[in-house]
Amino acid sequence: MARNVDKSSVPAVTVPRLALYLRKLRELKAQGTARISSQHLAELIDLNPAQIRKDFSYFGEFGTRGVGYEVQRLEEEIAKCLGLWRSWSVIILGAGKLGRALVQYRGFAEYQFNVVGVFDNSEHVIGANYGAGRVRSVAELEEFCAQQPVDIAMITVPAAVAEETIDKAVAAGVRAVLNFAPVKVHVPADVVIRQVDLSSELMFLSFYLDRERE
Amino acid sequence: MARNVDKSSVPAVTVPRLALYLRKLRELKAQGTARISSQHLAELIDLNPAQIRKDFSYFGEFGTRGVGYEVQRLEEEIAKCLGLWRSWSVIILGAGKLGRALVQYRGFAEYQFNVVGVFDNSEHVIGANYGAGRVRSVAELEEFCAQQPVDIAMITVPAAVAEETIDKAVAAGVRAVLNFAPVKVHVPADVVIRQVDLSSELMFLSFYLDRERE
Repeated sequence: MARNVDKSSVPAVTVPRLALYLRKLRELKAQGTARISSQHLAELIDLNPAQIRKDFSYFGEFGTRGVGYEVQRLEEEIAKCLGLWRSWSVIILGAGKLGRALVQYRGFAEYQFNVVGVFDNSEHVIGANYGAGRVRSVAELEEFCAQQPVDIAMITVPAAVAEETIDKAVAAGVRAVLNFAPVKVHVPADVVIRQVDLSSELMFLSFYLDRERE
Repeated sequence: MARNVDKSSVPAVTVPRLALYLRKLRELKAQGTARISSQHLAELIDLNPAQIRKDFSYFGEFGTRGVGYEVQRLEEEIAKCLGLWRSWSVIILGAGKLGRALVQYRGFAEYQFNVVGVFDNSEHVIGANYGAGRVRSVAELEEFCAQQPVDIAMITVPAAVAEETIDKAVAAGVRAVLNFAPVKVHVPADVVIRQVDLSSELMFLSFYLDRERE
């Protein structure tokens, strides 16, 4: 069914909204809601109904005017489009505080993102177990990835070693990176990278707080 | 000096780029670089030079054609614009794994975001110290905020209680929220909220991984 959606037509800015829709549709399904209008959904997630209709148009025309969208069908189509019809293997590179917190973050497994390995360079943490097996040395990364498929690497090492760590993951065959280190890293064109920059999020807030007080 | 920049003219989509520029300019300053062209900066941070020139135009005309921008002056102007001329007090609501990891995340203090308090509802963690004083009960939040200014609340409670927790922070006078709970929460118009949605970031990656394999 996902094959019906031409994913190359879905713009990158739309993808985070798909994740938002998916979460809300799952909630509605769990509550027993069978259909929802773009208007009602827009109120629930604070978006423009026209935007929602445009985004849903990628999934074909199974919304009916005055009746709304079928919640379950739409939820299934979006999940497939996001690649959630299968599970994905995730490794965490950097077993510091943030890395350890992420190992057991429940929100990942809920969508079948499974942490299969944790790696670090420090002898202080190699061998310890924070929830996804013992922490391995980064030197074992290539062998590990050769033995089992790894889809995504989450980078929680210090900024100074983020680039070399990402290079190692890419060399080992990883094709998707979620970088928590506050440094922009170049990757080959066939690798997709997203950055979670927590300080930058705080600066967004301080920008507005400071503006209000002017 | 920051008063010279009309912050209301800076669009929201520009603000995260300002944070990116700031980080790179600080790096360049530390390396002793006095001037940089938009072209060179564009290469360093993988953006379009025209975009950079447009963004910098908010800070007045102190780039000179063929000579480039003054690194230190630009860095200072951007920092001021982002509200970083002062420090900001941050509280963390939710002392679970993620909350504890954030307490000691070094990237925050670097920009003078100071964690001044950690709150939780669970008796198992109230009283424990993960790095910013003992964990307080959420019931103490209002009194705490009355006694010292709190600018920003980071929300690391479970999704099911995120809304009520944010409501409590807002009622206590907090005007900026960084929400890590995977749920969209409505706040009053005078409160600024940003969401860090880790599952959604992973779905962005799985979308592209899945597309490649089609």
